[in-house]
Amino acid sequence: MPRTLAAVAVVLLAPLVSAADADAVKAVLTQQSDAWNKGDLDTFLDTYWKSDDLVFFSGGTVSKGHRAVSDRYHKRYKADGKEMGKLTFTDLEVEMLGADAAMVRGKWKLDMKAEKPDGLFTLVVKKLPGGWKIVHDHTSASDPPKKDEKK
Amino acid sequence: MPRTLAAVAVVLLAPLVSAADADAVKAVLTQQSDAWNKGDLDTFLDTYWKSDDLVFFSGGTVSKGHRAVSDRYHKRYKADGKEMGKLTFTDLEVEMLGADAAMVRGKWKLDMKAEKPDGLFTLVVKKLPGGWKIVHDHTSASDPPKKDEKK
Repeated sequence: MPRTLAAVAVVLLAPLVSAADADAVKAVLTQQSDAWNKGDLDTFLDTYWKSDDLVFFSGGTVSKGHRAVSDRYHKRYKADGKEMGKLTFTDLEVEMLGADAAMVRGKWKLDMKAEKPDGLFTLVVKKLPGGWKIVHDHTSASDPPKKDEKK
Repeated sequence: MPRTLAAVAVVLLAPLVSAADADAVKAVLTQQSDAWNKGDLDTFLDTYWKSDDLVFFSGGTVSKGHRAVSDRYHKRYKADGKEMGKLTFTDLEVEMLGADAAMVRGKWKLDMKAEKPDGLFTLVVKKLPGGWKIVHDHTSASDPPKKDEKK
């Protein structure tokens, strides 16, 4: 293909490729909520980069590496007397930041018998050989209303 | 320059450009803490994208647009009886996600007379015509230890 034509093709195809990538990134979130709501924590955890460099921020707590993130989820939601509840994501926004990186932000809500926490999350996802994976997760919870509101 | 030579130059220069970008991104954080610690909230707020599409997540609260973010900071830290305190960032990590986008994550600590909150943050920064600016900020605070630890 002549070089000019190739350049035109790249310009024309770029938005399509980007839209396909955005859909693939959204599919990571669908895998998360579908797996969670089936009680399938392993498939949920498969959305995270299987690396020691995976980072998970929750409130003020740092978990480093897939093993630590997995252990944390198992302790909190699969141990005796724990429940996973129903996970819902809303207000999802995907923004491509490069050819193989994107940010996802949105709201999460967990419907459990004992409580119904909710909050916000920011993900950085990357296109890796195994597909799009979460390489960084920052999740925070809404605070219950306090008399002395600091947030 | 012959095309092959140009390609070699691009490959050789890429890590240098990336390192310069990472330094420019770190400078955004330095501008934040320097300005904050001089009580200069306007210079601090200049590190954020001056757009209605700027997004700031704090705990469970969403602020949309530079005006909302600015108002929030002014109310919390410049109103009567409020103090800005001393802001320190540690464990800063910059990761380039594309030619003009990066993630920054780290820990923050605020030393005030009344309290000493700390926590974590994730930023998405972009290279815009006015330089590198924060387009998304997710900040969360460590919880005070609770009897029934949920985080």
